[in-house]
Amino acid sequence: MEYTILDNDKVRGYIQDTPELMAILGEGELSIQEVGDGNLNYVYIVESSKSKIILKQAVPYLRIAGEGWPLSRERMNYEIRALSYFREIAPSFIPTIYHANEEMSVVALRFLENHIIMRRGLMEGIRYPKFAEQITDFLAASLLKSSSLYLSSESKRALMDRFNTNTQLCKISEDFIFTFPYMEHDSNNINPKMVSVQKELQNDTEFKVQMLKLKYLFMNQSDALLHGDLHTGSIMLNKDETYVIDPEFAFFGPFGFDIGALIANLLQSYVSHFERTRDSDYQQWLLETVEAIFVKFEAKFLDHWNRTDESALIAHGYADEAVLASFQKQFMEMIFRQSVGFAGAKMARRLFGIAGVEDITGIDDPDARARVEKKSLAIAKRFVKEYEKIGNVKELIGMIKQESE
Amino acid sequence: MEYTILDNDKVRGYIQDTPELMAILGEGELSIQEVGDGNLNYVYIVESSKSKIILKQAVPYLRIAGEGWPLSRERMNYEIRALSYFREIAPSFIPTIYHANEEMSVVALRFLENHIIMRRGLMEGIRYPKFAEQITDFLAASLLKSSSLYLSSESKRALMDRFNTNTQLCKISEDFIFTFPYMEHDSNNINPKMVSVQKELQNDTEFKVQMLKLKYLFMNQSDALLHGDLHTGSIMLNKDETYVIDPEFAFFGPFGFDIGALIANLLQSYVSHFERTRDSDYQQWLLETVEAIFVKFEAKFLDHWNRTDESALIAHGYADEAVLASFQKQFMEMIFRQSVGFAGAKMARRLFGIAGVEDITGIDDPDARARVEKKSLAIAKRFVKEYEKIGNVKELIGMIKQESE
Repeated sequence: MEYTILDNDKVRGYIQDTPELMAILGEGELSIQEVGDGNLNYVYIVESSKSKIILKQAVPYLRIAGEGWPLSRERMNYEIRALSYFREIAPSFIPTIYHANEEMSVVALRFLENHIIMRRGLMEGIRYPKFAEQITDFLAASLLKSSSLYLSSESKRALMDRFNTNTQLCKISEDFIFTFPYMEHDSNNINPKMVSVQKELQNDTEFKVQMLKLKYLFMNQSDALLHGDLHTGSIMLNKDETYVIDPEFAFFGPFGFDIGALIANLLQSYVSHFERTRDSDYQQWLLETVEAIFVKFEAKFLDHWNRTDESALIAHGYADEAVLASFQKQFMEMIFRQSVGFAGAKMARRLFGIAGVEDITGIDDPDARARVEKKSLAIAKRFVKEYEKIGNVKELIGMIKQESE
Repeated sequence: MEYTILDNDKVRGYIQDTPELMAILGEGELSIQEVGDGNLNYVYIVESSKSKIILKQAVPYLRIAGEGWPLSRERMNYEIRALSYFREIAPSFIPTIYHANEEMSVVALRFLENHIIMRRGLMEGIRYPKFAEQITDFLAASLLKSSSLYLSSESKRALMDRFNTNTQLCKISEDFIFTFPYMEHDSNNINPKMVSVQKELQNDTEFKVQMLKLKYLFMNQSDALLHGDLHTGSIMLNKDETYVIDPEFAFFGPFGFDIGALIANLLQSYVSHFERTRDSDYQQWLLETVEAIFVKFEAKFLDHWNRTDESALIAHGYADEAVLASFQKQFMEMIFRQSVGFAGAKMARRLFGIAGVEDITGIDDPDARARVEKKSLAIAKRFVKEYEKIGNVKELIGMIKQESE
């Protein structure tokens, strides 16, 4: 099928020509509505008397910027591949995939009717008691099982080969997370109250050196298949269920990057509530969630690892218990530390770069917003500067409290 | 052209059908001789009245093991690609490529008439006064210029994509360098005088944990395009010129791996001469060469780097002099340390694994050989156990002397 950009009418035709979608939706009338809020893609909600689905199509440019910002629609191939991989490894956390078509850059997914975007829930101060448990199930399984701690050498390279050329979206992360926010750049977008803080950061040699190290890891350490953009806008949930969506940034990168992204977003919510709700109990719940994510992730990752008889890294018969225990201890420290570093990078970039987070940008009073931003930056700086040395989660929580209270 | 295994007659026909080879060799009589000493491939010397060339063909099995050990002839694709890349980046160190054909797994190269395999030269105690200068020209250029310190993000991923699936040869390294030599394995092959030493190493928890770290780096750190097998048998030279050959193991791996392989082989020669020639002046020259390689590599690598205006890692305008200097200092320490670790791995594996080095295995008296092997292992253990902490080259040379004298 030759690629063509869909519209409401063409979506109708596309569905009629696609038996697996007809099987879901049935023969009756279809209501088709373009959601209009996708930054990158067109997103349609398609409803029949029988069912309701999401149909996404990538266009060969960045949707929010228009045709003047070309962006290969190949990104949908990586999204489809990542969704399929994650759905296989951790099926309860990925919406059912009804249909995928790389030629047309189209994917059709279950419509999540009773779930909201997590960022929105956190802004409203909603607690999600099962979230830490569920997201660490997803993270531990998806990261361990795409790594050389689980796969054979052959399978790891074959899987990498399906993501290696997600070049454009990796480049966006390299630029907008690790580079532009800390230098003079047209894309930056800041609270006017933060101008002098920004200047100071641009001249903070230690911070910028550390940021280069993190960027280097991001580009050159191919531990596992990452979601690549695991902020709270890429999570849909309710009090019972958690779903991960939008993995078009998927690539093989460092273990700590997805964990760091998630932690950063929880901490951005944490600092925002100093002004947003001033609900210190809710803030305490957020910190407990951060702590629980680190603790549960480590336990589950090690559990998967210990149930792996042989992997690309550890041949059957190579490592006795002492070797394995000592290696694992150092390895889990490395993941923890890098997660902290990446969390710092993700927090800092939201303050100066092209894309803020609504938790903070949604605070209308510029002074209140700046107070929140300064707390966020204080935490981010400690994370970025000290990530290679930080000892454990308790120390991390202490650092967060010290920099924000 | 459909793949077919060549023999002397078919080589003649192949050349007649290949205009670029006819242009080199001319119309006259051809003498064709299969060299017979390739471990992996068939290697023909083809001579006419006008010229002399090497023609290599990969067969779909490991030549020394026979058809019972299948090995994809795709390895020749990676060799061709690596030769082409290295020849472009560092032309004076790669033989002229007259012809390459991925379908036929054939490459034809300049015959190096006045050069010998470096291992042979070192066994005979020959000094190569220009070697350190020349090999560091090659290493600094080939490593820096295939890394994210030089290429754009897009070019780096595109180049990686041409090597990512050199899976079978990477697996050989993973198994035979980092794994099997340190456990019970049928492929191991040792001096009977070393049995108790081998058992001890198999139970050395610290050594085995460190070896896992190095193996993990080998598999997951994609710094630069490596030769992948840069021992002294992959170098042909004379007192004036140095050539690098046989890069079929090429892949994107850690900066320190090629440097480590080279250093390991020089040190294996160094320890062998305690018995081979007992020429301490020659041994001193070998240590000076090791030192010079580290010092010159660092200077040249930094020189290329400093002449790079913008790279995937460092955007124009991001880093001032202080940022760059501090980052480079830490980065070069990392390369140095990892090189030392990989040198240790390469030295240790030669003592216990499938493939020894003739410098040592060629010592006939098993007791004399064991004395050399113990010195080699003593150095290797220090390197592997202490690579993350070692400070500088002087300290390294001191360590080598301490463990061998």
